[in-house]
Amino acid sequence: MSRIVLHNYFRSSTSYRVRIALNLKGVAYDYVAHHLRHGEQRNPAFLAVNPQGLVPTLVWSDGTVITQSLAICEFLDETIPEPPLLPADPAGRVHVRALAQMIACEIHPVNNLRVLTELRRRFGADASAIADWFGHWVSETFEPLESILASHRLTGRFCHGDVPGLADICLVAQVANNARFGVDMTRYPTIARIDAACLELPAFADAAPMRQPDAE
Amino acid sequence: MSRIVLHNYFRSSTSYRVRIALNLKGVAYDYVAHHLRHGEQRNPAFLAVNPQGLVPTLVWSDGTVITQSLAICEFLDETIPEPPLLPADPAGRVHVRALAQMIACEIHPVNNLRVLTELRRRFGADASAIADWFGHWVSETFEPLESILASHRLTGRFCHGDVPGLADICLVAQVANNARFGVDMTRYPTIARIDAACLELPAFADAAPMRQPDAE
Repeated sequence: MSRIVLHNYFRSSTSYRVRIALNLKGVAYDYVAHHLRHGEQRNPAFLAVNPQGLVPTLVWSDGTVITQSLAICEFLDETIPEPPLLPADPAGRVHVRALAQMIACEIHPVNNLRVLTELRRRFGADASAIADWFGHWVSETFEPLESILASHRLTGRFCHGDVPGLADICLVAQVANNARFGVDMTRYPTIARIDAACLELPAFADAAPMRQPDAE
Repeated sequence: MSRIVLHNYFRSSTSYRVRIALNLKGVAYDYVAHHLRHGEQRNPAFLAVNPQGLVPTLVWSDGTVITQSLAICEFLDETIPEPPLLPADPAGRVHVRALAQMIACEIHPVNNLRVLTELRRRFGADASAIADWFGHWVSETFEPLESILASHRLTGRFCHGDVPGLADICLVAQVANNARFGVDMTRYPTIARIDAACLELPAFADAAPMRQPDAE
């Protein structure tokens, strides 16, 4: 068994998700940074690990190379069951997965670095247009997410009861991204409350972008 | 137990995913169409079911409202284990989930109707610019996906061995979308081969957009 290695970037919110999940599961790992803005994910040494050149990429102790942040979280949950990232019952599991995917499939993909770069390159989007684009997709999903979390009987201290899990992981990483684009979080009091509750836990706080070795 | 209802739209590729999964699991359902281009997903009757106004939305037999296509597929797999949509072993499961998420988190979210509409509205993107945007994100992920599927020891008749599953569901729905934007599939022979193998199965063929009651 070798050391577990996480190829990541401090500011990448999908990397942030995986760091939280590893911390919650108590998994020690080697941190390998790839500076996305400098294109370091295109280095031959990293492309030999993951030909797609995307972070996060997790190299498990048996050498298996694992990609896609939500798939990594599910893998960790199946490999190290405690503490669980998903509830035990199918209704709870689909609720938490749906909340996570609202962020992971609706907000993050349209707002990540490579998409914003293409908006600049193809359409000449300036900083103001980029911030407006970012904020649009956050509000399109955070408004219903806030409404669901504020009213759902399963919402507790965290997105599902009083145990942090997959939805909280996505929520915290998205809220951190929002701060960089000046999103007004007072519109989302329940999301902000859950974010604050998560960040009281070392597993979340220690995974934060500014606490990583490559933070600027 | 009431009838299961799928709120969907024939051309929505996330709806297509859920139709395939329901067919593979042998679940009969009532088809309720919402014409996205006419804004029918904003009808009050549908917003009362899903305040986010997004398809697909599945109303399960106990009245539970389930959203997010991948969460729905996982729910079906946990509720109706046979035939499985995911392999039994964690290494196989993470491989299939990662393939599915390459499509579901990298291609579809940046290329769906509401994003293309915003590109037109905000940046004046014309039909040519839209097709170029669409093709760019397909090739960014289909190139590595083709490479993985062509070389991976687990690839068989389908994305993982000889049983169709979650990755195939996403693949077939994406390939159908590609056809509408003129993506040259000869660049992706393994993906095209798997797509054709899937469409030989009634569960996939019967879920195709043009076979739905609201098809135009």
